Amino acid sequence: MDSNLYTSLDWDGWDKQFRRYFMNAVSGPKPLFLMGTKHSSGASNLGLFSNIMHVGAHPPTVAVLFRPLTVARHSYHNLKEQKQATLNLVSEPMLSKAHLCSASFPEEVSEFKESGLTEEYIESWDAPAVQQSPLQLGVMPVEEHRLEANKTILFVLRVEWIRLNGLSPERDGFLDLQKLEAVSANGLDAYAGMKPVSKFLYAKPGRPVEAVDSFIP
Amino acid sequence: MDSNLYTSLDWDGWDKQFRRYFMNAVSGPKPLFLMGTKHSSGASNLGLFSNIMHVGAHPPTVAVLFRPLTVARHSYHNLKEQKQATLNLVSEPMLSKAHLCSASFPEEVSEFKESGLTEEYIESWDAPAVQQSPLQLGVMPVEEHRLEANKTILFVLRVEWIRLNGLSPERDGFLDLQKLEAVSANGLDAYAGMKPVSKFLYAKPGRPVEAVDSFIP
Repeated sequence: MDSNLYTSLDWDGWDKQFRRYFMNAVSGPKPLFLMGTKHSSGASNLGLFSNIMHVGAHPPTVAVLFRPLTVARHSYHNLKEQKQATLNLVSEPMLSKAHLCSASFPEEVSEFKESGLTEEYIESWDAPAVQQSPLQLGVMPVEEHRLEANKTILFVLRVEWIRLNGLSPERDGFLDLQKLEAVSANGLDAYAGMKPVSKFLYAKPGRPVEAVDSFIP
Repeated sequence: MDSNLYTSLDWDGWDKQFRRYFMNAVSGPKPLFLMGTKHSSGASNLGLFSNIMHVGAHPPTVAVLFRPLTVARHSYHNLKEQKQATLNLVSEPMLSKAHLCSASFPEEVSEFKESGLTEEYIESWDAPAVQQSPLQLGVMPVEEHRLEANKTILFVLRVEWIRLNGLSPERDGFLDLQKLEAVSANGLDAYAGMKPVSKFLYAKPGRPVEAVDSFIP
């Protein structure tokens, strides 16, 4: 019997919180963004999201997974109604403020005010952005899928604008997230900074893997 | 005019490769796994995936996004036919070998052999796992969604077993991915290690954000 092996015979009997912590970590390091939305009343909202993935480059598209609608999901409802949101990359200097936005505040309370993050409006975009974030995206919903497995909801979002504060893309288009002090999420409430490892040449059969030296610090 | 602001007026005119690099980076740090599958001929396959997300804790469920089926997608076809795969967390010591698995090898070539990674079979699971990986998952497809936005395919996968090599979950279920030397992907061909930042107490309205001290090194 392999003591490192876990199956449903183990986890079905685990405490619910223990299982949540464990299962939220096994999917690896996750991107971390604050979603800014606006209620029809004008109240602004910020929610912390790590279930975000790249979908396509042209048109630029991302997807975000919402938990089942068993309780009020302010970001979900605002996004659906206003058809606009911002995604703001969380960086190390703003991390503890961002973490506070994962708390369940009542709808009339603005997470901007509670967390001390600064509301900012980019051009004519109605959804609020986070001034402290080094990378802000303006997104519009284009598609919604309900996952039958557990009633979570995948929203596919088209990126309408991108704002980079303090960095430009490199010659090949690459954007070094470590220079932006980007944070990744590890499970439910732990976070890690990025330490550089390697940038490689495009992998080809028969060619040894080669590091792009200029990238290594 | 805000020189840090990019819209389709900019990126529609960009070189395709530049745009791919840039857009693959703006969605933040990504999890990195090798997917092990088996062809009906018995040939084993390894593919490198960063478009993976946590879907649910009970039953444990993840999702992986496949590129459009415009060229042969070995992992996709094997997963669909065999209804089994493994997901193997990529760690720093195995990174350059894992990167090589992103190359387009012909179907009859095993990426295990080409990369020097070791094929391993966990109990009666038919899909091959990667022995060097510190965290291996056995997954089964339960649902498939085609995203209309760009014909990518989201596969929802139920986790059937989890194998942890060299680490146990902490008392609360937390799994410290940094101790596993987990790697995150930054865009298409750059990767970062994890540097510890903070583990916080569960956020509640009105309570200051508090770090869990024992976690900070």
